[in-house]
Parts: sequence; structure tokens; C-alpha cells
Amino acid sequence: MTVFDVLNLAGTIAFATSGAFVAMSKKFDPFGVFIVAFVTALGGGTLRDILIGSSPVGWMKDTTYVYVITVTVVLAIIFRNKLKHLSKSLFLFDSIGLGIFTIIGTEIGIQANFSPVISIALGTMTAAFGGVIRDILCNEIPVIFRKEIYATASIAGAIAFIILHYYNVNNNITYVITTLIIIIIRLIAVRFKLSLPTFYTIKKNEL
Amino acid sequence: MTVFDVLNLAGTIAFATSGAFVAMSKKFDPFGVFIVAFVTALGGGTLRDILIGSSPVGWMKDTTYVYVITVTVVLAIIFRNKLKHLSKSLFLFDSIGLGIFTIIGTEIGIQANFSPVISIALGTMTAAFGGVIRDILCNEIPVIFRKEIYATASIAGAIAFIILHYYNVNNNITYVITTLIIIIIRLIAVRFKLSLPTFYTIKKNEL
Amino acid sequence: MTVFDVLNLAGTIAFATSGAFVAMSKKFDPFGVFIVAFVTALGGGTLRDILIGSSPVGWMKDTTYVYVITVTVVLAIIFRNKLKHLSKSLFLFDSIGLGIFTIIGTEIGIQANFSPVISIALGTMTAAFGGVIRDILCNEIPVIFRKEIYATASIAGAIAFIILHYYNVNNNITYVITTLIIIIIRLIAVRFKLSLPTFYTIKKNEL
Repeated sequence: MTVFDVLNLAGTIAFATSGAFVAMSKKFDPFGVFIVAFVTALGGGTLRDILIGSSPVGWMKDTTYVYVITVTVVLAIIFRNKLKHLSKSLFLFDSIGLGIFTIIGTEIGIQANFSPVISIALGTMTAAFGGVIRDILCNEIPVIFRKEIYATASIAGAIAFIILHYYNVNNNITYVITTLIIIIIRLIAVRFKLSLPTFYTIKKNEL
Repeated sequence: MTVFDVLNLAGTIAFATSGAFVAMSKKFDPFGVFIVAFVTALGGGTLRDILIGSSPVGWMKDTTYVYVITVTVVLAIIFRNKLKHLSKSLFLFDSIGLGIFTIIGTEIGIQANFSPVISIALGTMTAAFGGVIRDILCNEIPVIFRKEIYATASIAGAIAFIILHYYNVNNNITYVITTLIIIIIRLIAVRFKLSLPTFYTIKKNEL
Repeated sequence: MTVFDVLNLAGTIAFATSGAFVAMSKKFDPFGVFIVAFVTALGGGTLRDILIGSSPVGWMKDTTYVYVITVTVVLAIIFRNKLKHLSKSLFLFDSIGLGIFTIIGTEIGIQANFSPVISIALGTMTAAFGGVIRDILCNEIPVIFRKEIYATASIAGAIAFIILHYYNVNNNITYVITTLIIIIIRLIAVRFKLSLPTFYTIKKNEL
């Protein structure tokens, strides 16, 4: 088990926890909580595998993640009142997950000889689209379309990854730098309440 | 045409009817009613086929189901006011559908040498996720995440199926027992208004 | 670059613009606006490719469309207040897109030896389901399930395409007739405010 695997698991646990909490806040039953946690953690990678035609999708071949998510959901339900006070740890985990999942997706794109722009899209999809599916299942507008620098951090990391890879920088260094870029952008964005501008002047009834 | 085919058709018709009624209650036009009926009946199996990489998906190769659903939708629209009084028959059909679709999905998983836990997931997905996509298309929170013992009945049936299959029980007996387990669990759950507990203590603004 | 390519691009631009405007009206940030524009333009074709097992999906192999959509989104954001006055041009573009995308999807179905009914479904899916995914991402009930003759126009065009193809009519003539049928049906429907009937008598609490 490498450092990479450990970080990957940390990301999976963080994403599953995030999904479980959103589902509990919506008063879902344990089945619903599990499903939402599952798609939050694995939905982005699943969509990536479907789009590139890698089948069966990853979690069907290696069930480790299914078990990890199951344990995470059970613990999240049991300790739901205590975990609220761990929001800073969860934020850190979530940022690690965003970083790691971006790297995994981008690297899969490069290995499969997709163009850089598609590889970046695969990285960001892997990292950020589990949350989109989570929000759709919870009947919410996907939060990453409106708030915070989230997908933007993933895109920046994926671009850095592509550049470092192009210059044959050592893999481990590339992983660390990419993840750090993503975490730092998120920290700065949340600390200073930065978000991308939106365009309020269009009213719906004007369309 | 075997007993299995008959039950499969009964399940398809029940699911399509359920989808058609939800769509009509949302004031969808006939095209919308058809699409929602279609995804309710075939959405779970379609998702399963996509995830395991079986393409083209089932209903593209055998259009029987497309025609069955079309006729079902036309009849549901024509007899919409009379069908309301058939809610008990519809409930029974729907439970049969849940049972049959669980068996189909679980068996596909076993045949393709997936692990038991993935096979159970495929069975439940086949049976219960058409309804999830139906609710998403209708802009509702998926009802199976919040109400009734529904997916839980499917999971229980899929586990029974795996066990009976492991002990080489005759297929027809396995089918009957699995379907009966699912129908009985649902009947008991609805009769006694049982549902899984939810976790109200988490407020959304506490996240 | 053929006339077909030009029309295809016009359709892509129109669909992307439509997606961008809906996303801006929902106050999405630029990332969200891009994603919604992207799925509106390419979501239908992506779903088609996934269902028939054509992988990787089209836009991953030819990134032209990614760049066209990116430029479209940037222009839509910059000129958002001026474009409002272009609603008639946008309507025409959108109808062209509906026509072209219907043809592309139906032809792919025929080439892959799918039955006529599945080919029609693929055509309509290619043309109309980007809008469905757009509406789901924006947490709205898909507009094509309730308003206007939209998918119906696509279905009519796809049927015409199948018939003309069956009688070996010259391809270019088939393309023109099919697109004209779709555009004319839409023009008439919008001009006379035609829509399919809905079935109001069913109340949700009666189910």
C-alpha cells in the first residue's frame, strides 16, 4: 500500500462522509444515505469510466471501495453529532480528495492518449462530478456551479499536472505539487470567501 | 414464453404504469409521460448494462419492451381515471416487478462472475433505480431514499438469491422464494407502515 | 468542410447558447455556465454513444466541439445583454440544431443496423436530451416534457428520414426535407401556441 493509496482512501472517505451528511440533512433513510455517499465518492470516476468506455467501471472490479464507503457511512451515522465539530478535518480531507481524484482522472486521460484538454476534463470530472450527482439526487442545484472556487481549483491542478508531466518531472513530485496547488487554492478561496463572478443581469423571464 | 417472461412483462407493465401516473400527476404531455414510463421500467436495467459494459443496452436489441411500454402508456392515459381504483393491483404488480427485476440483475451479475456484493448491487439497481431516474426527471427527491421498505426488500431478496444459488437450489424454486421474500417484506412494510429510521438531528445549516 | 458540418456547428452553437443563458439566469458561475452549455450541446449525443456502446464518446475524439462551445460561452457571457434581442435568431438556430442533431442520431442508428424505432429514438435522443440534462442540472422539470411541440417535431423528422432513406432518396435531399419538416413544425407550433394535451384530472394525492 503506497502513500498514493492512503491519500486515495482519505479522499474516498472524505467524499463519502460529505455525501452521507448531505443525505442525512435531507432526512434520507440509511439506504439513501449509503447511495448518496457512494455516488459522491465514486460517481465522478464512474462517469469517467463510462465516457471513455472502460467497463466494467472501477468499483465493480475492486470492491475495496464499496467496503470502505459502507464502514464510512455506518460511522457517519453513529457519530453524526460529533462529526459536526470536525468540519475543519472534513474540509481538509475533502480538499485532499479533490487533489487525488484530479490526479487519478488526469493521469488516466494521459495514459489513454487523450488530448490535454480532454485529460484535464477527465481529472476535473473524476474529482468534482460525484458532488454534482449527489446534489441532483438530493434535488439541489449542484453547489459547484454556484459557490466557491472548487472545480476551478481542480482544473488548475490538472493543468499543472499536464505541464509537469510534459516536462517529465518525477511522478511523486508531480503528485505532491498538484495536490498542494489544489489544496492551497481552496484554502485561499474559502479563507477570503472568493468565488467566481456570476451574471445577475439576466432575468429568467427575459429569455 | 416461460413463466419467467410473463412475470418479467408484468413487472415492466407495472413499472411503466407507475411512471406514467407520476408523469401525469406532474402534467407532462404524452411524450413526457412516455419517456418517464420508459425510464421507470427500463432505466435500472439500462444503468446496469452501462456500468457492466454490456452494449448496446438490452432494449435496443429486443424492442418488445418498447412496444409493451408504448401500449401500457396509451392504456394508462385512456384509463387514467379508472386505474386509480386499481391501486392494490398496481401495488402487487409493482412488487412482482421489484422481485423479478432483482432476480434478473442479480443473476446477470453472477453469470458475469462479479462478486456477490456487486451482484446484489446489480440486482437492486435493476429493480429500484428506474424509480430513482423517474423521480429525478420529475424534479422530486427519489422516494426510495426516504419512504417505505423498498430497496431494502430488493436487497434482502438479492441476498436470498445469492445464498440459494450458492447451494445449487433449483432455479425455479430460487426464483419463487426470492420473489416471495421481496413481496412479503413489502406487504408487511406497507401494512404496518414500517420504514427505515432517519436521522433528524442534523440540520442543514449545521453542516 | 461541408454544408452539413456548417449546419452541425450552427446547431452546436445554438444549443450551447441556450444552455449558457439558462445557466446565467440561474446565477451560475462561469464554470457552471460552461458545463451547462456543454451538456446542452453534447449531452444528447453523449447519452446516445453510451447507450449504443460507442466509446470513447464523440467529443473526446474530436475536440473541435469543445473549443467551439468554449468560444460560444465566452461570447454569450460578454454579450449577454445584447443577445436577448436576438431571440428570433436563437430560435432559428435552435430549430436548425434540432433538425441536424435528429438527422445525425437517426443516421447513426441506421448505419449500426438498429431497427427503425430504435433509430428514431436515437435521433430524438441526440437532438432533445441535451436539453433534458440541462434542465436536470438546473433543478428544473425538463421543459420538453411539458411545453411546446419540441421532441414531437424531432420524432416527425426522424420518421421522415427513415422513410426517405428506405426509398433511397438522395442524402442531401433527405437532410433538407427532414430539417425543413422539423423547423416548420416548430414554427407552426410556436406561432399558434400549439402543444400536446396534458391530463390534468389526476391529482398527485389520488395516486
